[in-house]
Amino acid sequence: MCRWLAYSGSPVLLEELLYQPRFSLIDQSLHSQLGVETTNGDGFGVGWYGMDGGAGAAPVLFRGVGPAWSDLNLRELARSVSSPMFLAHIRASTGTPVQQTNCHPFRHGQWLWQHNGAIRDFSLIKRDLMLAIDPALFASIAGSTDSEVMFHLALTFGLQTEPVAAVALMAGFVESTGRRHGVEHPLQMTVATTDGEALWAFRYSSEGNSRSLFFSTAVSTLRQMYPEVEHLNRLSDESRIVVSEPLGELVGAWQPVPESSYGYVCKGADRLGDFRPATP
Amino acid sequence: MCRWLAYSGSPVLLEELLYQPRFSLIDQSLHSQLGVETTNGDGFGVGWYGMDGGAGAAPVLFRGVGPAWSDLNLRELARSVSSPMFLAHIRASTGTPVQQTNCHPFRHGQWLWQHNGAIRDFSLIKRDLMLAIDPALFASIAGSTDSEVMFHLALTFGLQTEPVAAVALMAGFVESTGRRHGVEHPLQMTVATTDGEALWAFRYSSEGNSRSLFFSTAVSTLRQMYPEVEHLNRLSDESRIVVSEPLGELVGAWQPVPESSYGYVCKGADRLGDFRPATP
Amino acid sequence: MCRWLAYSGSPVLLEELLYQPRFSLIDQSLHSQLGVETTNGDGFGVGWYGMDGGAGAAPVLFRGVGPAWSDLNLRELARSVSSPMFLAHIRASTGTPVQQTNCHPFRHGQWLWQHNGAIRDFSLIKRDLMLAIDPALFASIAGSTDSEVMFHLALTFGLQTEPVAAVALMAGFVESTGRRHGVEHPLQMTVATTDGEALWAFRYSSEGNSRSLFFSTAVSTLRQMYPEVEHLNRLSDESRIVVSEPLGELVGAWQPVPESSYGYVCKGADRLGDFRPATP
Amino acid sequence: MCRWLAYSGSPVLLEELLYQPRFSLIDQSLHSQLGVETTNGDGFGVGWYGMDGGAGAAPVLFRGVGPAWSDLNLRELARSVSSPMFLAHIRASTGTPVQQTNCHPFRHGQWLWQHNGAIRDFSLIKRDLMLAIDPALFASIAGSTDSEVMFHLALTFGLQTEPVAAVALMAGFVESTGRRHGVEHPLQMTVATTDGEALWAFRYSSEGNSRSLFFSTAVSTLRQMYPEVEHLNRLSDESRIVVSEPLGELVGAWQPVPESSYGYVCKGADRLGDFRPATP
Repeated sequence: MCRWLAYSGSPVLLEELLYQPRFSLIDQSLHSQLGVETTNGDGFGVGWYGMDGGAGAAPVLFRGVGPAWSDLNLRELARSVSSPMFLAHIRASTGTPVQQTNCHPFRHGQWLWQHNGAIRDFSLIKRDLMLAIDPALFASIAGSTDSEVMFHLALTFGLQTEPVAAVALMAGFVESTGRRHGVEHPLQMTVATTDGEALWAFRYSSEGNSRSLFFSTAVSTLRQMYPEVEHLNRLSDESRIVVSEPLGELVGAWQPVPESSYGYVCKGADRLGDFRPATP
Repeated sequence: MCRWLAYSGSPVLLEELLYQPRFSLIDQSLHSQLGVETTNGDGFGVGWYGMDGGAGAAPVLFRGVGPAWSDLNLRELARSVSSPMFLAHIRASTGTPVQQTNCHPFRHGQWLWQHNGAIRDFSLIKRDLMLAIDPALFASIAGSTDSEVMFHLALTFGLQTEPVAAVALMAGFVESTGRRHGVEHPLQMTVATTDGEALWAFRYSSEGNSRSLFFSTAVSTLRQMYPEVEHLNRLSDESRIVVSEPLGELVGAWQPVPESSYGYVCKGADRLGDFRPATP
Repeated sequence: MCRWLAYSGSPVLLEELLYQPRFSLIDQSLHSQLGVETTNGDGFGVGWYGMDGGAGAAPVLFRGVGPAWSDLNLRELARSVSSPMFLAHIRASTGTPVQQTNCHPFRHGQWLWQHNGAIRDFSLIKRDLMLAIDPALFASIAGSTDSEVMFHLALTFGLQTEPVAAVALMAGFVESTGRRHGVEHPLQMTVATTDGEALWAFRYSSEGNSRSLFFSTAVSTLRQMYPEVEHLNRLSDESRIVVSEPLGELVGAWQPVPESSYGYVCKGADRLGDFRPATP
Repeated sequence: MCRWLAYSGSPVLLEELLYQPRFSLIDQSLHSQLGVETTNGDGFGVGWYGMDGGAGAAPVLFRGVGPAWSDLNLRELARSVSSPMFLAHIRASTGTPVQQTNCHPFRHGQWLWQHNGAIRDFSLIKRDLMLAIDPALFASIAGSTDSEVMFHLALTFGLQTEPVAAVALMAGFVESTGRRHGVEHPLQMTVATTDGEALWAFRYSSEGNSRSLFFSTAVSTLRQMYPEVEHLNRLSDESRIVVSEPLGELVGAWQPVPESSYGYVCKGADRLGDFRPATP
């Protein structure tokens, strides 16, 4: 299991979210409060989009295999890179090797993807899952995680044109394949994915008992609640954070994403919707 | 392209072959004389069998992602581990990531496998090759190299019972798959594989112009040629070394393995044979 | 703060102590029960002496900068190396960089040294401490930890001839230097050191509130207490383990080392003694 | 021995100098043409200043212990970071450990420092050199290289106020200390240092036979010589590159820095001067 964060809004220095809040993501790498594992020391990654945006610009990836808490390069980058959209992830391996190609986020063109959870009995069904991946994408699988396979299945099912439908087809295919092999609850996931302009976050598990996921209360509301918190003034109204577990200590700052639902974040248009796996 | 070494014989300290000869394998990591690349700094590995042998005992693996020349742990092990049978490999990546799961030798049960060369246009035919792997072995592929896929194909085709025939079937299958995709010369390889008791080494390429491979002249002959070289007295008569390029400077110590052939080394029984890909 | 283990006795596979007990040292790297930090993921090390012993033989070192829990090479070594005397250490950095030269144990000739604790305000007094190190030893300091400086001070004060007196002089010198710079409680330590034949373990802190340290109950006693525990029969009567926190769940298996004392373990002769810093 | 590059001028993407030219710095990590060692695979580093400059802003450091040629994070950064002033270094260790704290450039406040060369018999005179370092700077030495000691000596002798004089005093002190210990030619160096606004480069050796160093011909001249080379139009007139060995293949693009001299680069004011060690 892992912890992750996704940000969309006015540009912020990465360190403002990765290092500065109490219970920041880097704190969680050593001492997660809500995670299945308290330590997330099996690698990390950040993927960010540049300030100028520019449709089609590929995000930049920085991924390391050591623990995030002691990575000096991550700290340097975090204090020098500002971004209006980024994903960050700290990993606790569920068995697959600790290597850069298994670190999230994963990238395909201008898309990023990160995951907390697991496909149960993945080794049992990995081959069947991989056979369903678009042959043109097959060789671009660089690592050995379930998460990267999920990403490539979603790409195969149309992530780049109909993201919610594609993730639903991916989830449905993982579940049907797993059940065919006798796995009772094949899928456990919170997922964030983005093309640099919009952000989608999913919370779902076959057993209806998914890992935690939270989104931040609207900045305008927070400013009313906490007029004394200065850094809220630096955020635009449409800024949003989605996280595995809350950062900081502002009461009321976080809303749980409901079971079996997804969130969509884009300038001036947020929404929550139901999420149901679909049959390919 | 890479460099490798295989040893079978009376137990020797690893460092006697890895560090001490001029042009030792570790020297070759910085300055290969015959390799396609002069630098082999993209990881390394050693797999060795214990002193007591014991049929069925799995070999021990030590693999690292940095250059062999600066690895202090390898140096420590090499001066403390003696083995009657070991493989050692230094890697120059042909594009796949530098990660432990891509380092040779690869292991399956008591078998080890290492490779120099490449499957040409591997990304084009990787999917078809992987589909031919025994489904029960599929999920044990941990890395992303052509070499590991070759190993698992050979295992699928019977490596553990008929090694030469299985490698011939693997080579034939890679060639037919490659040619079906329009690859002119699909396979380039020197391969060493062992179960801890016998050692097989193969030299083959589709174009009939294979990477170099040498085996050591019989120790009894070398002792007659070089009575003054003390360390030859510590080797048993049946000790043999197979290498990508010669170690040391003893003239006449090394014989080239001919094109399209294989060598078999076992106590009291060496032989060279022709190698031809076979049709599965 | 860190966790460590020292073993002296009949040869055992490293994995029997590093991996197999519940609450094993590798478990403690993720979930320490008694440590100041619950996670010890900033590197690790093992130093062991060979089976043949042989006075004067330098121990073998294996040290890594990643977390011990995910290191595949450590796992491989632990299942293949047997030793009658070894030290093992998992690190939680108190600020100095995560690098191999800062991993314990440290080695000088045939001596090993490992430490849990800290010199307080080390950066303030580091220069004065280093000036007191024998100039001939100065350049052999490879890392930047307080622990390695303590080792070299102890060597300067005669560790190789009068170990207990030398460690007392080291502790006294650290305390007087610290106090001269206004540090109230300069030293906090549990230390293990060995020349391969005997093992010394120290528990001391300036404030009289030292990190935990335990030694194992005599094997003969344990065999009477637990006749059903098979692996106790494989240990010689004089086998002893010293640890930062208990391994396993045998009630009565562990005795705390008292405050301000040291233990000495050698074939057929254990003893506990008072430890008091001395003035150089 | 190592290779390095320093850039001052209109902002460029790091990759334009690190990756794109034939014989780029990253090429040189595998195949240096002029270096004492052809392979520079023992770590690397880049230190850059932000686009907004802003006097007093500390540069950002990215340093890695693996070879630069295979570092994916470096490649990502190089295509996303633009800077008007940066240093880059690839390392071939002369014996000190391969660790991040031994990678160049070194940083102190807003200053960077990188070095190619060596202090001969460094281990012999290291203690005397370190005693001369300002005690307030002593504990900030994080690694074990001669280069970092040279930097801290230069800081002690006034680098931040009189850079050329301070480097001269450093060189003189290293030479007098070395000669007192019987070292014939104590110092071999090319050094680059910068505070983010100006850049100083030094070429000197005790024996008058220094490692190579080149600076780029004025951009206005190059544009006249090569009107067809497009990327020259993107550089400002005062842009300058200083390198251990030439990048690219433009004839006449590079001028050797003479023996025993230094170069100063700042907006609108370049100069070359004689460099002579001075007596502290």
